[in-house]
Amino acid sequence: MANTQRPWCGREVVVADEREAGLGRAREGDEQARALAERLHDPARVLALSDGVFAIIITLLVLEIHVPELTPGHSLNQALAEVRPSLVAFVISFILAGMYWVAHRDLFALIRRTDRGLVWLNILYLLPLCLLPFAAGLLGRYDQEPVALRIYGLLLVVIAVMRVAIWLYATNRPHLLWQRLDDRQRRAGLALNLYPGLVYLLGFLVAKTAPGVSLLIYGVMPVLYFLSITVLRGSRKRNQEYADFT
Amino acid sequence: MANTQRPWCGREVVVADEREAGLGRAREGDEQARALAERLHDPARVLALSDGVFAIIITLLVLEIHVPELTPGHSLNQALAEVRPSLVAFVISFILAGMYWVAHRDLFALIRRTDRGLVWLNILYLLPLCLLPFAAGLLGRYDQEPVALRIYGLLLVVIAVMRVAIWLYATNRPHLLWQRLDDRQRRAGLALNLYPGLVYLLGFLVAKTAPGVSLLIYGVMPVLYFLSITVLRGSRKRNQEYADFT
Amino acid sequence: MANTQRPWCGREVVVADEREAGLGRAREGDEQARALAERLHDPARVLALSDGVFAIIITLLVLEIHVPELTPGHSLNQALAEVRPSLVAFVISFILAGMYWVAHRDLFALIRRTDRGLVWLNILYLLPLCLLPFAAGLLGRYDQEPVALRIYGLLLVVIAVMRVAIWLYATNRPHLLWQRLDDRQRRAGLALNLYPGLVYLLGFLVAKTAPGVSLLIYGVMPVLYFLSITVLRGSRKRNQEYADFT
Amino acid sequence: MANTQRPWCGREVVVADEREAGLGRAREGDEQARALAERLHDPARVLALSDGVFAIIITLLVLEIHVPELTPGHSLNQALAEVRPSLVAFVISFILAGMYWVAHRDLFALIRRTDRGLVWLNILYLLPLCLLPFAAGLLGRYDQEPVALRIYGLLLVVIAVMRVAIWLYATNRPHLLWQRLDDRQRRAGLALNLYPGLVYLLGFLVAKTAPGVSLLIYGVMPVLYFLSITVLRGSRKRNQEYADFT
Repeated sequence: MANTQRPWCGREVVVADEREAGLGRAREGDEQARALAERLHDPARVLALSDGVFAIIITLLVLEIHVPELTPGHSLNQALAEVRPSLVAFVISFILAGMYWVAHRDLFALIRRTDRGLVWLNILYLLPLCLLPFAAGLLGRYDQEPVALRIYGLLLVVIAVMRVAIWLYATNRPHLLWQRLDDRQRRAGLALNLYPGLVYLLGFLVAKTAPGVSLLIYGVMPVLYFLSITVLRGSRKRNQEYADFT
Repeated sequence: MANTQRPWCGREVVVADEREAGLGRAREGDEQARALAERLHDPARVLALSDGVFAIIITLLVLEIHVPELTPGHSLNQALAEVRPSLVAFVISFILAGMYWVAHRDLFALIRRTDRGLVWLNILYLLPLCLLPFAAGLLGRYDQEPVALRIYGLLLVVIAVMRVAIWLYATNRPHLLWQRLDDRQRRAGLALNLYPGLVYLLGFLVAKTAPGVSLLIYGVMPVLYFLSITVLRGSRKRNQEYADFT
Repeated sequence: MANTQRPWCGREVVVADEREAGLGRAREGDEQARALAERLHDPARVLALSDGVFAIIITLLVLEIHVPELTPGHSLNQALAEVRPSLVAFVISFILAGMYWVAHRDLFALIRRTDRGLVWLNILYLLPLCLLPFAAGLLGRYDQEPVALRIYGLLLVVIAVMRVAIWLYATNRPHLLWQRLDDRQRRAGLALNLYPGLVYLLGFLVAKTAPGVSLLIYGVMPVLYFLSITVLRGSRKRNQEYADFT
Repeated sequence: MANTQRPWCGREVVVADEREAGLGRAREGDEQARALAERLHDPARVLALSDGVFAIIITLLVLEIHVPELTPGHSLNQALAEVRPSLVAFVISFILAGMYWVAHRDLFALIRRTDRGLVWLNILYLLPLCLLPFAAGLLGRYDQEPVALRIYGLLLVVIAVMRVAIWLYATNRPHLLWQRLDDRQRRAGLALNLYPGLVYLLGFLVAKTAPGVSLLIYGVMPVLYFLSITVLRGSRKRNQEYADFT
């Protein structure tokens, strides 16, 4: 590059070239090691695996909606009423998975490199996520049953715990990020990751005494989420660090 | 770049460098904020998720074709006759999903950036799409039943509504596009997105009184689509804005 | 670029700049139209969808292997014997899908741009491919039944026909290719795409009279394929155009 | 480039341009052949297919966890106890698939080009991997049955054999790698790929006499793996070649 920028400095260029050639052999191993490290830390395949898993989860959810038995004279309303619990579980789970994917995309927009810890935390985050179709199937079949509601809530709490773990791990390691986050930004992101977990914990806790309230909490959560995003975005000017993650 | 292009202007270059270094520190935060914004608005993962969902939907459709009971002496025709309704529902749904994917690809060829609204509209578009294997399973099992045909048509109408919503949202926001569309192009695209929705609405409405006609409409729609594309492409010279989206 | 390469020609550069600015406004629309055309013809999402479909097909095949009923004292051999027909159908279908994917990858290594025809031919190629898990399930359950073998063979013939159609379509349109193929290369590729189709047609035709031979043909085909690749690669020096596609 | 770097050498540049134009026509065919070869050997689609398969496998595992029959008054513990064997098989298989994916990503970080042999070895590696949901379903249903444990172990051994085959094939062909590995690095990688295979072989062998020990081996393996990684990373300074692959 140097000789492109100062082409009239013929001699300097030659000297620089020689020096670089001299150092080159010594540094070549370092270069290669660094290039390998970059490839090993490239997030591309982590994102490819995660996007694949998210895509499959939201599509597999449909397998839990079973084709109802239709008899001649069955009305549209009757048929829809039969699949209603499954459909409710499908829509809630779909929106939740969508929220998790949006949050995953937002988080990884901050991440430049992945290390082994982050790669494994991401896999361990996908583990409870992959159980979502099972929990949705359970909820679709036993939508009044406290146990089904508790298992569903438990799963959402575990997912939230893993999200918090990834957030803390990644933002604690500035060399993994495109840019260092300051303490306020880290706390803001932590709050955004903790907040749904606490709401789901509430849904889990009330499932035994008030199953209807529990289901309502799971279903209303997305609405709360969209409302809070709208409010936070409205106050974007005052609160830049929240706005970045909504 | 400036010093590469005018290498003889040594002094000017130095001055420029100093000025840039001076401004650099002040502008660095802006730079980083802009780079983060670009990553947050990058459509890459939206497309990865969408392509994954489309790929899974068209492949999951096959799960609704159940292996028939074969007895010795069963002819090929008899076996095919048994799976015929499932196969018809599979082919119709496959071609429809293919049309949706092609339209999605065409739309996102116009889109340079995604914002939170577009990301969520896309997720809410994938939601009814993911119900297609269920509706296809229903149609494959009850291909004469008005209710099955109405649910299938209802789903196609909802998908069409979401397509129109994405089209209006994206083309109304020039900063999300590679290039601004003029009013004629927007209306042309809107028509192309509305048109199948209206046809499916017809299929939904006649399902009760004439189930055969309804099935015919769903099945013939792709043929109409290919014909209209051929006609529109034939008139490409006169009608550039239609041709872009076919 | 011109002023980088000849920085001493100050005046010429300025003149060129002015001319370009003059023409620029007129040409801008063309530029944008060309950029849009490039994005509309970019094969990236066609490959993403196809790779997704191939990945799902080879993984869905496993769903046709049902967990056998095990009783205490069941030996490993007995258990494996029970799933043997399903396992054979799985392995044959997996290897076939692998061959199709390799051929798809080889073909699209030649393709620079996709047009609407190629996009749709690719979707219509994926259609019979997506029926492979169904045909494998049928074959795994009725591996002695002529009808199952005929349906399996019929599907492979349809897939082969679609492969030939894509090959002819793409290689007939040099503007879609990275480089024009000469007639010998086109014929060689056509032969490689036709050849398995003819073998499967044979398997289909003999299924009624000799089911065992038919199954053998489907299973032995991959072996033939690998052998012919080895032979063709051995003669690479003499026959460059074959070697490119094996 | 030459004329950018030495813009004052006008005549030389022109001469060079003429010579290059002269040679250009002769070399153009070679250029195109080399560009085609690069596209044919590009690992991108191999990784896309593999990531897709891994994503689907870990998500399909959930289909083997069946929704339990819940009766009113069923406690959370009873419900969880019913799905416990399936859940254990799910978690073990998920973590194993995660380990395979991490190892696949590490291996392909070394690989610059794929040839036909590597592409097919990769497909033949994915084959036993795709049987994992079947083996997990078997293990979830018959977690005390020696045969189920032996089939599961057998599958893990086959996967390990394929991993070793890919490692030997790729590292033996320096033209496929970003940089040549020395003998110590190759042996270290071989050991890391062999080691789990030997542990699974032990699990397979003891399954008949001590099924509990066998299940323990499959379940404890990931823990051993994480422990050994931690130890190896601790000794990174001394043992660079191990550290690269952990």
